[in-house]
Amino acid sequence: MTEKAETPVITKPLTVEYIEYELPQIGSRDLLVKMKMCGVCGSDIHLYHGEWDPPYPRIQGHELFGEVVKVGDEAAKKHAVSIGDLVNIEILIPCKDCYFCERGNYSRCNAMQIFGLMKCDNPPHFWGGFGPYLYVPFDARVHVFPKDVIPESAVLTEPIATAVRSCQLSEVTIGTSVVVIGPGPIGLVTTATAKAYGATPLILVGTSDQRLALGKDMGADYTIKVKRDTPREEVAEKVRDYINERDMLAEVVLETAGTVSAQKMGLGLLRKTGLLTIVGAIGDNEYVELDTYNEILLGEMRIQGINLSGFGYEAAVEIINSKKYPFEKLVTHKYPMSELAKAFEVTEKRIDNPVKVVIQHDL
Amino acid sequence: MTEKAETPVITKPLTVEYIEYELPQIGSRDLLVKMKMCGVCGSDIHLYHGEWDPPYPRIQGHELFGEVVKVGDEAAKKHAVSIGDLVNIEILIPCKDCYFCERGNYSRCNAMQIFGLMKCDNPPHFWGGFGPYLYVPFDARVHVFPKDVIPESAVLTEPIATAVRSCQLSEVTIGTSVVVIGPGPIGLVTTATAKAYGATPLILVGTSDQRLALGKDMGADYTIKVKRDTPREEVAEKVRDYINERDMLAEVVLETAGTVSAQKMGLGLLRKTGLLTIVGAIGDNEYVELDTYNEILLGEMRIQGINLSGFGYEAAVEIINSKKYPFEKLVTHKYPMSELAKAFEVTEKRIDNPVKVVIQHDL
Amino acid sequence: MTEKAETPVITKPLTVEYIEYELPQIGSRDLLVKMKMCGVCGSDIHLYHGEWDPPYPRIQGHELFGEVVKVGDEAAKKHAVSIGDLVNIEILIPCKDCYFCERGNYSRCNAMQIFGLMKCDNPPHFWGGFGPYLYVPFDARVHVFPKDVIPESAVLTEPIATAVRSCQLSEVTIGTSVVVIGPGPIGLVTTATAKAYGATPLILVGTSDQRLALGKDMGADYTIKVKRDTPREEVAEKVRDYINERDMLAEVVLETAGTVSAQKMGLGLLRKTGLLTIVGAIGDNEYVELDTYNEILLGEMRIQGINLSGFGYEAAVEIINSKKYPFEKLVTHKYPMSELAKAFEVTEKRIDNPVKVVIQHDL
Amino acid sequence: MTEKAETPVITKPLTVEYIEYELPQIGSRDLLVKMKMCGVCGSDIHLYHGEWDPPYPRIQGHELFGEVVKVGDEAAKKHAVSIGDLVNIEILIPCKDCYFCERGNYSRCNAMQIFGLMKCDNPPHFWGGFGPYLYVPFDARVHVFPKDVIPESAVLTEPIATAVRSCQLSEVTIGTSVVVIGPGPIGLVTTATAKAYGATPLILVGTSDQRLALGKDMGADYTIKVKRDTPREEVAEKVRDYINERDMLAEVVLETAGTVSAQKMGLGLLRKTGLLTIVGAIGDNEYVELDTYNEILLGEMRIQGINLSGFGYEAAVEIINSKKYPFEKLVTHKYPMSELAKAFEVTEKRIDNPVKVVIQHDL
Repeated sequence: MTEKAETPVITKPLTVEYIEYELPQIGSRDLLVKMKMCGVCGSDIHLYHGEWDPPYPRIQGHELFGEVVKVGDEAAKKHAVSIGDLVNIEILIPCKDCYFCERGNYSRCNAMQIFGLMKCDNPPHFWGGFGPYLYVPFDARVHVFPKDVIPESAVLTEPIATAVRSCQLSEVTIGTSVVVIGPGPIGLVTTATAKAYGATPLILVGTSDQRLALGKDMGADYTIKVKRDTPREEVAEKVRDYINERDMLAEVVLETAGTVSAQKMGLGLLRKTGLLTIVGAIGDNEYVELDTYNEILLGEMRIQGINLSGFGYEAAVEIINSKKYPFEKLVTHKYPMSELAKAFEVTEKRIDNPVKVVIQHDL
Repeated sequence: MTEKAETPVITKPLTVEYIEYELPQIGSRDLLVKMKMCGVCGSDIHLYHGEWDPPYPRIQGHELFGEVVKVGDEAAKKHAVSIGDLVNIEILIPCKDCYFCERGNYSRCNAMQIFGLMKCDNPPHFWGGFGPYLYVPFDARVHVFPKDVIPESAVLTEPIATAVRSCQLSEVTIGTSVVVIGPGPIGLVTTATAKAYGATPLILVGTSDQRLALGKDMGADYTIKVKRDTPREEVAEKVRDYINERDMLAEVVLETAGTVSAQKMGLGLLRKTGLLTIVGAIGDNEYVELDTYNEILLGEMRIQGINLSGFGYEAAVEIINSKKYPFEKLVTHKYPMSELAKAFEVTEKRIDNPVKVVIQHDL
Repeated sequence: MTEKAETPVITKPLTVEYIEYELPQIGSRDLLVKMKMCGVCGSDIHLYHGEWDPPYPRIQGHELFGEVVKVGDEAAKKHAVSIGDLVNIEILIPCKDCYFCERGNYSRCNAMQIFGLMKCDNPPHFWGGFGPYLYVPFDARVHVFPKDVIPESAVLTEPIATAVRSCQLSEVTIGTSVVVIGPGPIGLVTTATAKAYGATPLILVGTSDQRLALGKDMGADYTIKVKRDTPREEVAEKVRDYINERDMLAEVVLETAGTVSAQKMGLGLLRKTGLLTIVGAIGDNEYVELDTYNEILLGEMRIQGINLSGFGYEAAVEIINSKKYPFEKLVTHKYPMSELAKAFEVTEKRIDNPVKVVIQHDL
Repeated sequence: MTEKAETPVITKPLTVEYIEYELPQIGSRDLLVKMKMCGVCGSDIHLYHGEWDPPYPRIQGHELFGEVVKVGDEAAKKHAVSIGDLVNIEILIPCKDCYFCERGNYSRCNAMQIFGLMKCDNPPHFWGGFGPYLYVPFDARVHVFPKDVIPESAVLTEPIATAVRSCQLSEVTIGTSVVVIGPGPIGLVTTATAKAYGATPLILVGTSDQRLALGKDMGADYTIKVKRDTPREEVAEKVRDYINERDMLAEVVLETAGTVSAQKMGLGLLRKTGLLTIVGAIGDNEYVELDTYNEILLGEMRIQGINLSGFGYEAAVEIINSKKYPFEKLVTHKYPMSELAKAFEVTEKRIDNPVKVVIQHDL
């Protein structure tokens, strides 16, 4: 006798169908997770519209939080999990054989699989977090939470891990002066994470009073409200005042807004040797006009990109477990699995001003 | 009785006057060098034209090679020099008190003095390498060569030190795949320096057959000839072939041409996680259109600027002393101090296709 | 008319005399601090006994906390201070010219001056923190606190800076498993500092219940009580349990006890690639028997020493300002300047079980 | 019809038997190498005597150089090899799933397999380089040489890779002052490798004139002849003279002799902040008496161990291909596969003063 479960499947652009799939056989190297919560990411909306050439049919969802319900012996040993454990699973499954995997950088794997982005018509089907279950293959990476973790924090593990990676590669540590641009979900978890790494002062730049206030809750020492057309010199002046150290600008700018103007602003907030870390994605065919002579060369400034959350999960779990940051405040909207299309719509159209929309599977 | 010496002084834009100054008093902390050779840098031409708001009057010249002729006791101990030693003096004199000096980065000093860029009407006057003598204050940094050093190599210490700094901050080591763009004097010494650090393969990109051939002499494994309008995809294809490692592009691109198109090309030659190091200065009010999504974010690529040669001199001296690289081939034109204006003209107008023009003081 | 002040001077071993010295002239580059508090360090006891060949006469004291009462223009600009500011001054004054200073490592200066360890019979006399005033030369480094800083925390800046340096060079960050050995004053501030850097789990090993309880207050997640002869395998077993990660020992051991047995124990608590950072000084003519094959080679373990607090002050000030760690609990005994000999005796003989003994100048 | 090959098998301590095994089936992920040469390592002698609890029966040999004779499709793609390619195979095969593999450090794998140290009674049998063939599983790492590589250099790839790892983790670069202790095979390839990384000056310390002369051929700038009882202060004096830089000792000491006295000497040759890298294995139950106060703490010196050659192969191949170092001079004795016991005896008893003894399979 086989068990089945109904799951929301994207069968074509803008279409969610609910299909019943058989639960996978769980062998010695496999793991099955019952989903508790899964966040809706901006990328989910792009994919839902059919952008980036995604496969069909698929189960979306990669911000994963659930409970171990079946686990094989080898898998239990490798992942150090037991039935009943509350877990996050990393977004990407590395191939372990490519050029980057061989050199230890699994986060740049040339042949990675990504949860929420795989064809699901064949077993084991359950490749996405918006479904009721998640199949976890041996090469996935699993992280265990204590039983009293706040689900609304745990569901943010993946975005927090991205923020961790930004802070690690930007060498944010106690006393680093940091500006975060863009108080969206990524900017807000980045604010908390930069504070966890010791950023001081930590300055958040954004356009919305409400979001900036939330940023204060997440650990920002100062906030700067801007409009689309605020000259960056004006922002720079405030950054200098807040840093208050020999007239210096910031050592690190973490750009999470993903607009050309935000990235251009970021370049203008750096002191000599400063680092602009780009986390936000601007559109295809958009360009930042880079004055390499004044913005890069003269002061030996630097730019780097951060993509995906590899290497960030252990620290993300520690930051969540510290309970110092009210991540749960970011989860403003929850929907059951049966209202996935609605959750997408609310996210896309910003209905009722959401910060983070999640699917909660037991609603 | 005081000694005097005639020296070429820039008294106003495009004007070299020969003025007799008294040699400075050499106290316990001072050092006097009799110049043997001093290279003409591209920046000398800009300054000669009055760009960048330089002081008047001044003695230009910062690519310094000479002989110790007077030295005080404290200076002799600090610099570890004796009379008769052949020396290079670093281009910049740090303040040792500013934010960057306190943190150990003297090369970004906020109050640095630069040889060749100081007013010379008051004693000690001799602040530039095109003059017959150089006054060396205590806080300058001095490097000694063996007596048999080739002067035409030693005069290139400062540009080689810049190349060293590029390679250090780009973490070029044995087996790093490196593309150098632009076979000018900086590009050619960067080619030799990258090879000294172990770059393999080392690929030089340029427009002139003659320069590319010189690049081979300096250690390039491969050269790629381009025209102004060669699409970067075409260059990328060749880079992939030469690297011949799982279809990879370069780990490091060292951009020394200082044009918008060269820098844009450089961005297109990087593998994931690759680093574009910008050494070449584009003009004011020029911009590189940076597709941050595809060129930075997705593959976690990086850009950095290198300015000035601090921290590069010890290794530069070792590279020169190894005698493995025919730096002397780069010194194509020599003029006596009395023909400084001519040396500037040859450099600016590229008369007779010069690579490096130098003032040789005993001509 | 000149002002004078009585100050406790060590004129020969075990002898404190109170001598009146003229306050120094404060020129443009000078600074005068009125001491508020100065901690007694273990090294003060050694010096008081005449060990390590100290100069006479001298004013001891290098754990410095006071108020700016006079400052010259250049000094005010360089140190960014005004009259009335509450400040710490770093223990060492670098020469800025030696091999290590030139390479940016002022903390290893070959010709450093150290507060509390200079002859004081000539002006400016006031070279030690146990005196009522401190003369601060231009090359010293000064750090400003907010007005509401807790003096009992601020007086610990120097030991906390040492702990910062240990954590920095041990690369302690969020999620690093750390064992601190020795809950003395250094061990306790190291515990707080390691927690500030994100150490998890953070395990403190010591012999005294009372000190271990204090360690919990400072941020230790776990404590392990040992006796002199507890086998290190027994401690290792507990460390493994607390770390609870695939049977691993610690990534970093910070040894602050300064005994042969503690250091030997530390070597036995490291996982492969682990790092033992030695902060505690064992006696001259004492040796740790190092089994380089099993303790270093096979698992690529590492040992490093940390000496002095250079580079640690900015972060130390941030950690104090965060008010997350009850440093003031460590200051168990306070004496006026007039009872310096008593303060030394209490420290040396551990009368009434002191943690940190300080001189408070307004008592 | 199956092909068979006779191979030298260690069936019990001190016993080589020649047994015929069937060649393995080569599937899509497999590779078969016909051995050309395999070096005898000191560890081979220990194992031959039954030390370290090795498995039986086994085929020893891990310094591997051979020719690809069969390769499956997936293996050809992953390893980027074709039939006829000359290759080295890394000594260790990582599990790719353990704590260290997941963190990118495959060289510390907790479940590694090692060529020359596996049971061989079951297929695929051919797990050691002294046999005529080598079976190479998918997770092994393969490096290709150009066709004109000198076999006597290529057979040293594994020891050179160890030297590369030493230099990488010791941050040896252009201008680093380095002392190598012990001109055995590892010390001599370490000398060449340190020179390839730019060590200057590079000083080799040893007891044998002949070996020190060979060290000069390998790139040593200076050699110091010592006896067992030469005081380290005497050696230090010479190191200071050769370095000739403000009375400094070495930045890096690479200890390859593997004796207590050599490691103790190494500690005495370090400048402040210097690093002793231990590559040589002292015996079990032997100890280096470490004066942590004077040898580690005061000057912030460091010790690290290097074990196995992971991450060193790419650079090792580049160093061999550069043909700048006469590695072939180190191969002093060659034996056919049929004389393996003799090769072990010559190595162990140092008959005829061998440097490197190898098995050459076509003799």
